Amino acid sequence: MQVDLLLQARWLIPVEPESVTHENYSLVIDDGKIIDVLDNAEALQKYQPRAVEKLDRHVLIPGLINCHTHAAMSLLSGIADDLPLMDWLQNHIWPAEQKWVSEAFVRDGTDLAIAEMLRGGTTCFNDMYFFPDVVAQQAIAHGIRANVGLIVFDFPTVWAENADVYLSKGLALHETLRHERLISTSFAPHAPYTVSDEPLRKMRTFADELDATIHMHLHETRHEVLEQQQKTGQTPLRRISDLGLLTPSFMGVHMTQLSSEEIEFYAQTGAHIVHCPESNLKLASGFCPVAACLNAGINVALGTDGAASNNDQDMLAEMRTAALLAKGVSGNASAVSAMQALKMATINGAKALGLDDEIGSLSIGKAADIVAIDLSDVETQPVFNPLAQVVYAASRHQVSDVWIAGKRVLNKRQLTTLDLHELRHRTEAWQRRLA
Amino acid sequence: MQVDLLLQARWLIPVEPESVTHENYSLVIDDGKIIDVLDNAEALQKYQPRAVEKLDRHVLIPGLINCHTHAAMSLLSGIADDLPLMDWLQNHIWPAEQKWVSEAFVRDGTDLAIAEMLRGGTTCFNDMYFFPDVVAQQAIAHGIRANVGLIVFDFPTVWAENADVYLSKGLALHETLRHERLISTSFAPHAPYTVSDEPLRKMRTFADELDATIHMHLHETRHEVLEQQQKTGQTPLRRISDLGLLTPSFMGVHMTQLSSEEIEFYAQTGAHIVHCPESNLKLASGFCPVAACLNAGINVALGTDGAASNNDQDMLAEMRTAALLAKGVSGNASAVSAMQALKMATINGAKALGLDDEIGSLSIGKAADIVAIDLSDVETQPVFNPLAQVVYAASRHQVSDVWIAGKRVLNKRQLTTLDLHELRHRTEAWQRRLA
Repeated sequence: MQVDLLLQARWLIPVEPESVTHENYSLVIDDGKIIDVLDNAEALQKYQPRAVEKLDRHVLIPGLINCHTHAAMSLLSGIADDLPLMDWLQNHIWPAEQKWVSEAFVRDGTDLAIAEMLRGGTTCFNDMYFFPDVVAQQAIAHGIRANVGLIVFDFPTVWAENADVYLSKGLALHETLRHERLISTSFAPHAPYTVSDEPLRKMRTFADELDATIHMHLHETRHEVLEQQQKTGQTPLRRISDLGLLTPSFMGVHMTQLSSEEIEFYAQTGAHIVHCPESNLKLASGFCPVAACLNAGINVALGTDGAASNNDQDMLAEMRTAALLAKGVSGNASAVSAMQALKMATINGAKALGLDDEIGSLSIGKAADIVAIDLSDVETQPVFNPLAQVVYAASRHQVSDVWIAGKRVLNKRQLTTLDLHELRHRTEAWQRRLA
Repeated sequence: MQVDLLLQARWLIPVEPESVTHENYSLVIDDGKIIDVLDNAEALQKYQPRAVEKLDRHVLIPGLINCHTHAAMSLLSGIADDLPLMDWLQNHIWPAEQKWVSEAFVRDGTDLAIAEMLRGGTTCFNDMYFFPDVVAQQAIAHGIRANVGLIVFDFPTVWAENADVYLSKGLALHETLRHERLISTSFAPHAPYTVSDEPLRKMRTFADELDATIHMHLHETRHEVLEQQQKTGQTPLRRISDLGLLTPSFMGVHMTQLSSEEIEFYAQTGAHIVHCPESNLKLASGFCPVAACLNAGINVALGTDGAASNNDQDMLAEMRTAALLAKGVSGNASAVSAMQALKMATINGAKALGLDDEIGSLSIGKAADIVAIDLSDVETQPVFNPLAQVVYAASRHQVSDVWIAGKRVLNKRQLTTLDLHELRHRTEAWQRRLA
């Protein structure tokens, strides 16, 4: 049988089925999809590929899914660090955003983030920012999968004047993007403290009608929970639940403040958690009880958050931090194993986005979103366990090749859809303006 | 004036004086030492260098000091992960060590760690392992600075039969290495629960006589503290203090279990802490209260621990984890700033080793132990703050060049003192044996 591409790898970790690492294994790709997963020798007998790629020092994993980004904020990386959350937000980040965020800022910042993500093995990102139309357009242009957040605040910003305008612009954009192969959309109410009941109720209705997901910051800090409790006697979680938002279509981002009862309750709703360990640490927001959440059956995905609070878009590092931190926080060295961390960065993200039929594992019938990591560097030798080397030791510079829907977007460390030289000039121009 | 080498950098972070980042600045190097630190243009007028290196996309920082390693354990990276501490130690690590540790294992494992460390900007490591003679020999051979631990246990291992033999072999090695330019030694009693009072008293006396330091695991886990308290009514810290070990020559490694009173007490002794955040997380050992220790005036250095519990020897990542984790643990986003993290990985390590006259900062008169990091990758753009990019975003693959005592050991990513091809063969041979 003639096929487009055969990837012959030293190791292959499909994620589904779980806890399997194949040695000398192949992926067979045709028309942008994985059509077979089998032994290297067998693959060569069974298929006549138009191209063969030998990856004999590499492990193949599913493309990483960064489930919480503000991609354009990459232009603000390092502009303010080591500050208390409110000082950081109110005196640095918000004024910079108010002054500088524009279509051009979002275009160039998103490009910078996309370049960084592709070079680090991220094949899909779940974004929340102003000008989501521009985010979608840049993702399409550079061949990366994106779930674009239709952002909503109560108050005016450069993107819209009030909740109704955010919503109508969001609905229009949803309609425009409906047939884009690499793009999906979520309603993205910013947070409980910035969006009132009325627009949240509307989003719930629209999400049901359009079969769309909802992406929202929730229980990020103790302050957020206490303030709301003092004002209304209710936790933000309770309020969001009362408004009917907690369904399997809902992604609550951060969730550092959760009692055992709230974990049980959240698990029953089928809603997802997006865990952002490095951002939570850097802003001293608290610890999401990931091990307890996973044990309760909650689907926990992983995100970097924006580069202003991380300061990178490095999902390999985020996996490592998630695995290490969960052990420390739970006091259990078996908590969040390497396999669980990889699941959080792949299939769990796909589930949160409602895209697990299409992405999240190297399975027959899914899109060919694939990352090759070269383990031959001394930094990842010896290889007793390729999975442990990927999660606990490999650096993103060892990501050699990336395919998205079968298209090679990183070829032996070279981006095929972005001109780094030109991007560097645009980034430097912003740096001069903002400095 | 004629000099050996002039490094002309885009940025230079000397660490001493603190909180300074120079732009377009030079290091002047002669006879292995830094003899001047000044403006690029001025340097060219004042000196006639035999060689000039332009580093116009790079930041120069002091060589990183990894203050706690078991270097040879790099051969065990990924052999056992995600296991509770005692299961991990007793059923995996100790049996593997008992079966395989030999002079050849230590030689090859130390070489693997040295290659990884040099490529990641580490110019000095503080080791504790069997066959310290071999560790010293390999460090000398490859031009890396090392403080070699003269290891002591009560019980027999492949290196010695009993505490007296460990000590006499240690003293002999100390004597042999006394005039080695790159090597110093510490007494290295393994831990309170593996070394009894008598050898600890002897080491205290020898350390005084020889003006040597002491390097010891201490209060690594709650279990360690509770067990000792149940047996003797004393904490390990109290016992070590009663034995007279807590002086400015003492390095206590881990120190995850510390009350406020113990922090105050420890600060008064002038003893140092070596913090190993990734190892403490991975083994769920507890959290060292780093911010409180620094506030109390304790000198806190940084180490990776062995590759079996980390799983890398990556000091850039360890700095990042230290800065992030301290914020999370203290609940204060200002705790352990980027500058403090860099100090922990450089000058604080030098102080702990008693080598701060010689290394730890880019200061006139100190050894030319220097790391150049290329910040032009998209991953570290834009550069509002070179220090923030180094600590919060740069990856070790961006380390382009490393000098130790003026000798270039990494030249545009190529090691000059180690053959990676040959090293890979030796590593693979061990992997086959151990598998």
